Amino acid sequence: MQLGMVGLGRMGGNIVRRLLKAGHHCVAFDRDTAAREALGAEGALPVADLPAMVAALEAPRAIWIMLPAGAATEEALVTLAGLLSPGDVLIDGGNSMWKDSVRRGAMLRAKGLHFLDIGTSGGVWGLARGYCLMIGGEDAVVRRLDPIFAALVPGKEAAPPTPGRTGDPRPEQGYVHAGPNGAGHFTKMIHNGIEYGMMQAFAEGLDILHHADSPTLPEDQRLTLNLPDITEAWRRGSVVASWLLDLTAQALAQDPQLEGFSGHVSDSGEGRWTVQAAVETAVSAPVLSAALYARFTSRDEDRFSGKVLSAQRKGFGGHLEPPKP
Amino acid sequence: MQLGMVGLGRMGGNIVRRLLKAGHHCVAFDRDTAAREALGAEGALPVADLPAMVAALEAPRAIWIMLPAGAATEEALVTLAGLLSPGDVLIDGGNSMWKDSVRRGAMLRAKGLHFLDIGTSGGVWGLARGYCLMIGGEDAVVRRLDPIFAALVPGKEAAPPTPGRTGDPRPEQGYVHAGPNGAGHFTKMIHNGIEYGMMQAFAEGLDILHHADSPTLPEDQRLTLNLPDITEAWRRGSVVASWLLDLTAQALAQDPQLEGFSGHVSDSGEGRWTVQAAVETAVSAPVLSAALYARFTSRDEDRFSGKVLSAQRKGFGGHLEPPKP
Amino acid sequence: MQLGMVGLGRMGGNIVRRLLKAGHHCVAFDRDTAAREALGAEGALPVADLPAMVAALEAPRAIWIMLPAGAATEEALVTLAGLLSPGDVLIDGGNSMWKDSVRRGAMLRAKGLHFLDIGTSGGVWGLARGYCLMIGGEDAVVRRLDPIFAALVPGKEAAPPTPGRTGDPRPEQGYVHAGPNGAGHFTKMIHNGIEYGMMQAFAEGLDILHHADSPTLPEDQRLTLNLPDITEAWRRGSVVASWLLDLTAQALAQDPQLEGFSGHVSDSGEGRWTVQAAVETAVSAPVLSAALYARFTSRDEDRFSGKVLSAQRKGFGGHLEPPKP
Amino acid sequence: MQLGMVGLGRMGGNIVRRLLKAGHHCVAFDRDTAAREALGAEGALPVADLPAMVAALEAPRAIWIMLPAGAATEEALVTLAGLLSPGDVLIDGGNSMWKDSVRRGAMLRAKGLHFLDIGTSGGVWGLARGYCLMIGGEDAVVRRLDPIFAALVPGKEAAPPTPGRTGDPRPEQGYVHAGPNGAGHFTKMIHNGIEYGMMQAFAEGLDILHHADSPTLPEDQRLTLNLPDITEAWRRGSVVASWLLDLTAQALAQDPQLEGFSGHVSDSGEGRWTVQAAVETAVSAPVLSAALYARFTSRDEDRFSGKVLSAQRKGFGGHLEPPKP
Repeated sequence: MQLGMVGLGRMGGNIVRRLLKAGHHCVAFDRDTAAREALGAEGALPVADLPAMVAALEAPRAIWIMLPAGAATEEALVTLAGLLSPGDVLIDGGNSMWKDSVRRGAMLRAKGLHFLDIGTSGGVWGLARGYCLMIGGEDAVVRRLDPIFAALVPGKEAAPPTPGRTGDPRPEQGYVHAGPNGAGHFTKMIHNGIEYGMMQAFAEGLDILHHADSPTLPEDQRLTLNLPDITEAWRRGSVVASWLLDLTAQALAQDPQLEGFSGHVSDSGEGRWTVQAAVETAVSAPVLSAALYARFTSRDEDRFSGKVLSAQRKGFGGHLEPPKP
Repeated sequence: MQLGMVGLGRMGGNIVRRLLKAGHHCVAFDRDTAAREALGAEGALPVADLPAMVAALEAPRAIWIMLPAGAATEEALVTLAGLLSPGDVLIDGGNSMWKDSVRRGAMLRAKGLHFLDIGTSGGVWGLARGYCLMIGGEDAVVRRLDPIFAALVPGKEAAPPTPGRTGDPRPEQGYVHAGPNGAGHFTKMIHNGIEYGMMQAFAEGLDILHHADSPTLPEDQRLTLNLPDITEAWRRGSVVASWLLDLTAQALAQDPQLEGFSGHVSDSGEGRWTVQAAVETAVSAPVLSAALYARFTSRDEDRFSGKVLSAQRKGFGGHLEPPKP
Repeated sequence: MQLGMVGLGRMGGNIVRRLLKAGHHCVAFDRDTAAREALGAEGALPVADLPAMVAALEAPRAIWIMLPAGAATEEALVTLAGLLSPGDVLIDGGNSMWKDSVRRGAMLRAKGLHFLDIGTSGGVWGLARGYCLMIGGEDAVVRRLDPIFAALVPGKEAAPPTPGRTGDPRPEQGYVHAGPNGAGHFTKMIHNGIEYGMMQAFAEGLDILHHADSPTLPEDQRLTLNLPDITEAWRRGSVVASWLLDLTAQALAQDPQLEGFSGHVSDSGEGRWTVQAAVETAVSAPVLSAALYARFTSRDEDRFSGKVLSAQRKGFGGHLEPPKP
Repeated sequence: MQLGMVGLGRMGGNIVRRLLKAGHHCVAFDRDTAAREALGAEGALPVADLPAMVAALEAPRAIWIMLPAGAATEEALVTLAGLLSPGDVLIDGGNSMWKDSVRRGAMLRAKGLHFLDIGTSGGVWGLARGYCLMIGGEDAVVRRLDPIFAALVPGKEAAPPTPGRTGDPRPEQGYVHAGPNGAGHFTKMIHNGIEYGMMQAFAEGLDILHHADSPTLPEDQRLTLNLPDITEAWRRGSVVASWLLDLTAQALAQDPQLEGFSGHVSDSGEGRWTVQAAVETAVSAPVLSAALYARFTSRDEDRFSGKVLSAQRKGFGGHLEPPKP
């Protein structure tokens, strides 16, 4: 099958590679000439601009945009919407806000075009391991592009079968048609929200293990624990076995004190949008929020809230702050 | 090797079965005659009381207690300590509080006995899948019982190797000698604390998915999502892939609305002790705490804190409570 | 001074009454004839519709809208914008979303009109006690209406002076010109967010006091505490002395077990918007979020997140749910 | 009335001063000679050691210990218990753990002595403003010492009466006999837990106000807010009016950016014990916990949990950490 790919960074480039391996034909564009030529050398057809991409594809076309969420994605969508013909499909495989995808779906439908919003999980491992895809859009369009999706996902053998499962066979391959436009990115947003919560659960548990020798404990209760060994053991037979644990054990095996990291942690849109979705749907999400806030705090060099507390303590109790650590 | 097992419930019974399959000799005791005869029929040597168990084992003996934490475990330990000879080993494989294990280790050492505190993860799946063991105690004693542990754990092939890992080969089999007495149960406590956090992360994320059709959202943004399909798709290639996700997908495959559950959730000691350990070591653990509190709230039929809020709202604003749902 | 008031509910009506007492002239409109006639009997000039209100006021007019946030306020603003003349002032004293106030200010400025967004705190007690006002808008307009604001606020003697305070004397009366449009409602939003947090702090603390006789405590540590007496004592000399504590002590004096309340607690826009503002500004706000989530949970009869936890527990451990309380 | 005071620091010294002003007779001891001589000059009878204090008081004696919780208090209690006669009263007015007070009460009763555990709130302001007292112990003993308590508390006029209140008149003066031994310190612990929650609510709200000009907001929505003016205005007529707000407004009036503080915040025992009490009584206390954790995080220079998150992010996504701020 034919697919156009706009944006050949780590994600877009590897998706093209995985499609090429499966025998699909890819037309590839990136502003960066080197990026598109690299993929050309691997079997894709590089093009120099979006009109060239549209010209290189047969109708009904399918073009996958894999760009940073926000202005870059919006601009590419709008430009392509002006170049495509009724019946063509635009795909946003990036981490867009799901409400943008609802809006864009309506905008493109009004022009006779189709839109798919696809949440794509897998990161740097996706090329080898396959991508988990969460797709929003019209049923017929999702089915038309099934060969593309089937080539990208990990496949049935990537996990043992779920006893009692019936129905749509696609989720057992690693992709789900989650609903109309917006549903793909909504599902990906929640996936990432859960990911934040799981990561923070590990981070807190390991932090306590790391401080099990704390001088605040009675002397005969202080423990010096080997985190690389503990996380490795947990990978087999325990309840917390998970891909995140695998990665954690790997990081600790290579750097037992994680000295290579500063502890300042970024956050991306999905973690924030998850909290906002919880608030909008009146669902209590203390874990998902705490996970986000821990990242905010990790970068908070201003410490204004701490200053307010210290000022209050001085006010009522004459308490001085502890010495700077 | 010989092992005595005290307590033949779901965990103790299956540990004996797994040891028998591996060719070990087990002496089995339970207050319940039927329980010990059942294991006798499967190859264990059933005994009618603790003195008989001690008599049936050759020194240096190893007796594994698998009873509810608290009074039952304490009583069995104290009784056996009075019957055993110097050099014998007592094992507590239950979910005891780690500070009890520190204390018990000292108490037994004073009598010339050895003590191992072993956190045992694996639940009802352990018989088939193997148990993850977190062991606290003296190095020589842990090494002496290595054939027992090696028979219980899932084994190396249960997970792919961790790149870069060197050192102690036992964690790659699924068990870790975490440190002196207390370290086994401390590590198990934190394992369960992380488990609580991961479970709650899934619970919150799925709750938002479940409410994605909330009437509080603008009409064109409401989504009806298929949770069995979404969780199944996440099992392959996504960042949240985990054994807990496998179990969640399985539960949803069989009961998509989870109507078989009331939503009142129990909690056990480890979740609570994890929060107390965080407080004692001055480690911030908002996710692990929130996970525990969510369980408290799920059972809170009293709702006194809610009543305080409603009383305050009426006080300053004349606000009435919403109609009872 | 002249002021038009649109919306004569609990808040709007009492604001008019407080202005009339101070000698101001009020033109009063409400869809409900009885409401406007009641105020007419107290000295206001009742009018039957918005054109009549505009006709009854001399330019430059000032009209205060005190309606539910959202559609009602938007509609009144748009209608009045079409009836007013350049230089007139529209005031939104309700609990509007601050971003709406930014937008409305720009929209009205484009028509030559002025806009003030005023957060109004005081509830049912405001008539007697005065209102705390948080005002956003142009400086000259805020100053022009100063006699109105000065009549509404509690006044300097309502609290002892703050040592070291200099500068703008208006905050010492109980009102603040917080900034341009949006700043009034932003400040009120944060006020309410803090209010949620303080309320929940009391709710949790009192909940623990209420459960100090819990059977989970060792028998000799169970305490039966008198909450009306404790909260009353705290009102004098303690660090938690506050108006919310006064109201709490009052509610407990009248209903020591708060049996008149179900524990289902409403939440309004500001608590939600505060969490969203924290997320948008990357500020960690775990207390303000937890306070909001506690209200969500208090009304959550669905308990889907609890069902997920129970399903997982059954999956890995064969655990059954606790009996329904 | 006669009272012995052991420990003449900020709290103990001012309690003696307030008692002297009310005409009581105080025998004063502190290890620091200068401290006891200073109070001698103000009218107390200084003594050089505990036996001298016991000799200087007539039976039945009452001795108030005002020392740091833990070893210092325990040692003074045990020493005095060996010197006193049946019927004498020992008072612990410090911030002891309530379970210690349960235990100490039983220990002293076994010797024929009486014990009162008194939570004392008021800090540096207590001398002028009076102290709020939360008392645990036997009823007859509390009543015997009533003149002492009546002299220490702020008195009825310190707050307006609570409508509908009947019963024990002492709480209206500012003190409560909360129950048997342990009840005083339990009540004080919860008071401080609530205090932590209220402080953190202000800290978070002010932090959002402080970041209302964040570059993460759309340009036309950024606000520069004057925190000294806003907090001053809130002191009159708002729902968040409180003593903590008074102190906050005062700190901001003197140092609008709170530049005199580092933002590293201490925590004392009561905040930690409150969380442990919540866990022990199965009460959900997310706000009180979050307030404690915010203090832990404010001092966390290690950032191990952040390092775990960064290591995981690098593992699955190849994400690099943000540049150090």
